[in-house]
Amino acid sequence: MDDRLKKQMEFALEIDKEKNIFRQTHLSGHGRNENDAEHAWHMAIMAYLLREYSNEDIDISKVMLMCLIHDIVEIDAGDTYAYDTEGLKTQKAREDAAKERIFSLLPEDQKAELIALFDEFEAYETPEAKFAHAMDNVQPLILNNSNGGKDWKQHETTSAQVYGRQSKTALGSKKLFDEIVDVIIKDNIAKGNIKE
Amino acid sequence: MDDRLKKQMEFALEIDKEKNIFRQTHLSGHGRNENDAEHAWHMAIMAYLLREYSNEDIDISKVMLMCLIHDIVEIDAGDTYAYDTEGLKTQKAREDAAKERIFSLLPEDQKAELIALFDEFEAYETPEAKFAHAMDNVQPLILNNSNGGKDWKQHETTSAQVYGRQSKTALGSKKLFDEIVDVIIKDNIAKGNIKE
Repeated sequence: MDDRLKKQMEFALEIDKEKNIFRQTHLSGHGRNENDAEHAWHMAIMAYLLREYSNEDIDISKVMLMCLIHDIVEIDAGDTYAYDTEGLKTQKAREDAAKERIFSLLPEDQKAELIALFDEFEAYETPEAKFAHAMDNVQPLILNNSNGGKDWKQHETTSAQVYGRQSKTALGSKKLFDEIVDVIIKDNIAKGNIKE
Repeated sequence: MDDRLKKQMEFALEIDKEKNIFRQTHLSGHGRNENDAEHAWHMAIMAYLLREYSNEDIDISKVMLMCLIHDIVEIDAGDTYAYDTEGLKTQKAREDAAKERIFSLLPEDQKAELIALFDEFEAYETPEAKFAHAMDNVQPLILNNSNGGKDWKQHETTSAQVYGRQSKTALGSKKLFDEIVDVIIKDNIAKGNIKE
């Protein structure tokens, strides 16, 4: 096997570990915690089906790939819960080290390409990054809502926290924010699942 | 919420169930059984990174979407193990019924699009379908190989069975068949993990 293919296959095997990184979100039907690979798969399909609601023109293939790879760094860095104040302070340093180690398994050109894509997602500036982030926010929201807001209740999440994160969903899709996100949040505040 | 968006969100929530459909393959590191959503995520990334080895020119976005959605029917139809002779007899009928129910949750245009894509995958004729199938075959092979061929041993799989399935990998990528698949199979026969 040539060196290039060997590296690609090593990376392919390494990312299998993302299936063992569990998130705070629970699957619908009051299921177990979701893992990063499942979350990324779900986001990529949702991005494709909801692309018509992006505020700006997007390269949907790029968005999908961004969704698929955006949590690979968590193989080393672990999942940082969106409202974990302490964890968020060290998240960048942990993820930078992970990014370097894991993507270095690939041939140089593919390492550079995936790191650029990951960095673009993190920078939250391009239309593609904004829409991929909208998926990253909406996907757990609909699961949590389907479970009666159990994850919010468990973490005693406040409306300020949820709006703090979810208001950025509007940067990717005003329609999804107005018609899905805002409606779900208001409903869960009314029901006492999210604290005022 | 308008009717189109409502349907799209119902579908998005429904496919969450794919994370509960478990396969015979085990995760690397002698992990638990893999589920369909994880498998699809893994295939889509591998397709992107290995696309240079496709025998024919391919639309990689189409291949990735094909990988992501190809097992959605198993939410109703369940996973049919590649070497389950009895299950394979009823697989088509079970999956056709599932396809109709699940994709009908979507707006008509998206239902038609995803069914066409699923059917194209199943037909195994286009360059994209052949390459997506190569990923469907190679992805569990590398996991199983990383676990010392445990899944083959457990099912007392024969070389005729493995080659019967994996020889079709060459239809999508001769290079991946020659340099990965054939090497792994021969090695696992030599080690007694696959019966002659």
